[in-house]
Amino acid sequence: MTVLENALRESADRVGQELDQILTTDTAPEQRLIDAMRYSVLGGGKRLRPFLTLQVAGLFGVSERSALRAAAAVELVHCYSLVHDDLPAMDDDDLRRGKPTTHKQFDEATAILAGDALLTLAFGVLANPATHSSPAVRADLVVRMAKAAGGHGMVGGQMIDLMAAETELDIGAITRLQRLKTGALIEFACISGAVLGNAPQKAREALRGFAHDLGLAFQIADDLLDVEGDEAEAGKALRKDAGQGKATFVSILGPERARSQAELLSQQAVEHLAVFDDKADLLRMAARFVVDRRR
Amino acid sequence: MTVLENALRESADRVGQELDQILTTDTAPEQRLIDAMRYSVLGGGKRLRPFLTLQVAGLFGVSERSALRAAAAVELVHCYSLVHDDLPAMDDDDLRRGKPTTHKQFDEATAILAGDALLTLAFGVLANPATHSSPAVRADLVVRMAKAAGGHGMVGGQMIDLMAAETELDIGAITRLQRLKTGALIEFACISGAVLGNAPQKAREALRGFAHDLGLAFQIADDLLDVEGDEAEAGKALRKDAGQGKATFVSILGPERARSQAELLSQQAVEHLAVFDDKADLLRMAARFVVDRRR
Repeated sequence: MTVLENALRESADRVGQELDQILTTDTAPEQRLIDAMRYSVLGGGKRLRPFLTLQVAGLFGVSERSALRAAAAVELVHCYSLVHDDLPAMDDDDLRRGKPTTHKQFDEATAILAGDALLTLAFGVLANPATHSSPAVRADLVVRMAKAAGGHGMVGGQMIDLMAAETELDIGAITRLQRLKTGALIEFACISGAVLGNAPQKAREALRGFAHDLGLAFQIADDLLDVEGDEAEAGKALRKDAGQGKATFVSILGPERARSQAELLSQQAVEHLAVFDDKADLLRMAARFVVDRRR
Repeated sequence: MTVLENALRESADRVGQELDQILTTDTAPEQRLIDAMRYSVLGGGKRLRPFLTLQVAGLFGVSERSALRAAAAVELVHCYSLVHDDLPAMDDDDLRRGKPTTHKQFDEATAILAGDALLTLAFGVLANPATHSSPAVRADLVVRMAKAAGGHGMVGGQMIDLMAAETELDIGAITRLQRLKTGALIEFACISGAVLGNAPQKAREALRGFAHDLGLAFQIADDLLDVEGDEAEAGKALRKDAGQGKATFVSILGPERARSQAELLSQQAVEHLAVFDDKADLLRMAARFVVDRRR
């Protein structure tokens, strides 16, 4: 296993434990909902976004406790978005991370409510005094998360994506779509670590550039996986974009140019990190990883 | 028009204007989502919850700006919950406030995303510096809203309600269900005004008691309307609970005992306000109104 794979695994374990603690089970009548939330969140996944939060937090000496809570909030939002995006009325997916999607395992109503409750919980985690001693930092995180995840962020991106089957999108429109749909939360994952550590403006700008390029590289790699990947390895249905006639980076650029574009973005992402010393090496490796990954 | 009706109308207008400003339109590709959010929020409604926030804020000299923003956030969460509850997978309602529900007017996917974005926006509004000068107050509001609206609050209540058709609920279980489903947000609506005004503990406890009794009275009145009300006046489908074999306050207590219970709770709610002077008179009238209303 590579250094990065080890670090990702170790980080995923810590985040998984934190999420397990946050999503406590009890015997309340609404336990079915909590079960669905736990199913949606504790089922594995790469945990790339919380990894970014932890790594960035590490650059600025943020306490383990603060970093883990912010990282967990990021993952809660990511998981809620998967639960809702998988619904029959949306992307209609039966499989996620090699397991039945939440609405298949439970039912549609429970999946909608579990997503709602995960999103709500994420804000509660960010604003809770346990996340940071400074209420200004906590309120700032909530404002930034609301922007990244909201109507002109992640949810807006999903709206455009749903309309993409019926709209002719050019490369500029697709770039904006993906910047909203996946880029905004990836940027929040990075910036939240800097906010927790009260990082200087120059560092924040570097991280914003890093997150932007990494996010796009990640998405192009995702489009390539959708075309070239193995369903068993991916743990979800592939080749859906082409089936729906959706424009993607790959359908417009072709696989070769898409791949070289992703690699260019990955290099650019690394270059943004030049302001940091070797403490940012795992972030540099992550920028390479997102274009090389198989799932 | 009574004094209360006038005050409700005037408050609804101010909250409506605030929501209109918060939900700005533009020409972004995700405009369809913003349109659906505006449709879900600006379509009228009693605006009872934001009225409570404004009235309580008025007891403690909170600025108009702060009170209106918190009130708007409460209404955003209320409206998101209606949009999701009306979905085919949930209560499957076609009519709300006399108009097509959001998924009927747009489509299911858009309604799910509009709800998600409204919920997200509510947290962004609460945490924004424009809402209060103290970040501690803003973070506190976010924590309380997340609790009121989350898996052991409003969403948990909706989960239990969905299971109610298949479960035998007694009066205790129904009381808990409603305390979560509608009571928690009504309590937040009241308490948020006290948090903004840094109200003393004794006042907060009185308001919590008031909100608790008012919330239950409101719900029993809702159950009575479902049995006895006029669909045209209500602007939504009625008699659904009985059709689904769901236990309600009315099905268990019978209409007469349910009505006297609602009236008792309404009186109790008023008694909690004894610690306040005549500035709380509109709140007292609101406690009567919730049991007398026709829609």
